[in-house]
Amino acid sequence: MNLHMEKPYVAGIDIGGTNTVFGIVDARGNIISNGAVKTATFDDAGDYVDDVCKHLLPLIEAQGGIEKIKGIGIGAPNGNYYSGTIEFAPNLPWKGVIPLAAMFEKRLGVPAALTNDANAAAVGEMTYGAARGMKDFIMITLGTGVGSGIVINGQVVYGHDGFAGELGHVIVRRKNGRLCGCGRKGCLETYCSATGVARTARELLVARAEASLLRNIPVESITSKDVYEAAVQGDDIAQSVFSYTGEILGEALADFIAFSSPEAIILFGGLAKSGDYIINPIKKAMNDNLLAIFKGKARLLVSELKDSDAAVLGASALAWELKELKD
Amino acid sequence: MNLHMEKPYVAGIDIGGTNTVFGIVDARGNIISNGAVKTATFDDAGDYVDDVCKHLLPLIEAQGGIEKIKGIGIGAPNGNYYSGTIEFAPNLPWKGVIPLAAMFEKRLGVPAALTNDANAAAVGEMTYGAARGMKDFIMITLGTGVGSGIVINGQVVYGHDGFAGELGHVIVRRKNGRLCGCGRKGCLETYCSATGVARTARELLVARAEASLLRNIPVESITSKDVYEAAVQGDDIAQSVFSYTGEILGEALADFIAFSSPEAIILFGGLAKSGDYIINPIKKAMNDNLLAIFKGKARLLVSELKDSDAAVLGASALAWELKELKD
Repeated sequence: MNLHMEKPYVAGIDIGGTNTVFGIVDARGNIISNGAVKTATFDDAGDYVDDVCKHLLPLIEAQGGIEKIKGIGIGAPNGNYYSGTIEFAPNLPWKGVIPLAAMFEKRLGVPAALTNDANAAAVGEMTYGAARGMKDFIMITLGTGVGSGIVINGQVVYGHDGFAGELGHVIVRRKNGRLCGCGRKGCLETYCSATGVARTARELLVARAEASLLRNIPVESITSKDVYEAAVQGDDIAQSVFSYTGEILGEALADFIAFSSPEAIILFGGLAKSGDYIINPIKKAMNDNLLAIFKGKARLLVSELKDSDAAVLGASALAWELKELKD
Repeated sequence: MNLHMEKPYVAGIDIGGTNTVFGIVDARGNIISNGAVKTATFDDAGDYVDDVCKHLLPLIEAQGGIEKIKGIGIGAPNGNYYSGTIEFAPNLPWKGVIPLAAMFEKRLGVPAALTNDANAAAVGEMTYGAARGMKDFIMITLGTGVGSGIVINGQVVYGHDGFAGELGHVIVRRKNGRLCGCGRKGCLETYCSATGVARTARELLVARAEASLLRNIPVESITSKDVYEAAVQGDDIAQSVFSYTGEILGEALADFIAFSSPEAIILFGGLAKSGDYIINPIKKAMNDNLLAIFKGKARLLVSELKDSDAAVLGASALAWELKELKD
């Protein structure tokens, strides 16, 4: 505990294709200060790291300097925990394998850990959120895509290569499945992401003839938020979109439970906050599809972290476990 | 290492619905001596444990007595590792929750551990077989049913309740799936077990008109062994049965890899020894269905343990990790 007194803060950096957000976080999950830079404006990863550090260092100084920082946690697409590298991330400007954790360590002089954003979210939930005290749970992030972070025996599952936990790309429809950004067909993500919800809405609007509030919106610009707002107003097609989405997700969750028998499944992201419209069909399909031995065991929870804070908190949480750098 | 000198043996007990087999095993996986009793003849679990001990104790004495035995490992259907109990096993004569590990500990005075047979097989493979030195792999047992044992970070995944790793009951066909013994439809086990292979053969013999060696066998008594023998003789329907089976298994394995990104998948059981007829279609479907990031990484291996020894070896392997009983 003395350690937390000496080094009471961690830094979290979440790297997205458009923005990078970062912050200084204390042991209770309070974001003391934060900032952001535009990821996409840096063609060179070195320049990018310099710029993040330029903005991050004043925040660190304001808390008493780098000796108060236990470490830096980084959430990034295609992040490899073992090597601390980002590998061939399609949505980032830097190609190939980028040793980002080492680059931050070198510039700031504190240890850094890196993993993908969904794994970081799982660590964040375990450290500050709904999974405190849990040793076995699965985090599902429902955003533009579907990500996952799996925790077993209190440890994130990274697999032999650092890339485990791609549950958004489990195939849920083998026949006539939707084309996924990954090039395959029928991935969970094509149905249960925000994008998948909008796609389902467009399909249902064609397949069904009845009136719908969604018909007031140009079909190609419908978002999952529009679907939610229509559902709240009692729109039948919008509510059907959530039923359909929830059923597919619930079926998939039942299979995930057969793998690791978690204490809970924790949903994160805008969709997870669409309330009973989506939670009820997920719960029903999950329970209907569970093997008898697992029935009534795993809880379905929604993340306790604020959407706007979660990325920085998740990344920061990685850093509490870090050991000091050797000279 | 001194420990192995003082207590150089473990005992393994594999409990099946019909037979219980047991043996004394050394650290290299040699079965020094073994025996068997009929499980189903004992209505009372206490009588059963007494009978197993009656047959096991002379084997223990022959190796220098109980002080040479590090512990007892037990593989059993519906075995819960955490509690050492068998819980509501449908194919065993004892109903409810049976504290079998504790019963053996009490009678023999050495520590006992218990888990289901597929998890025991995974530990056996890690200790004596194809998974030596591996920290992340998935064991798939292809027998009357399909079982699985998942190892992550060198530890068997038991889940929060002790029952994780039921990959035979992942749903692989959501529409018109085959009815499974578990009461649900479309489970992997209904297609890729020995029983599933025989079922596929019967279906193909009806669906297709051409000649087949399998037509010489009464349709209800066709076994997966018959299918293998016909395939070896060039029988087209028999070979199609394996292609169909292998494709479904390979698709499922690709999804399992997205979960835990293992170094290898290890197949065990008669079907796994049906050679290229089944291995080639599994490999092809697995590779065709992998997310790009996992392609070419996980190896597909066949168990190195002899079928006849594997059950005792797997169970015995659990015992090397056991700590001494406290008085």
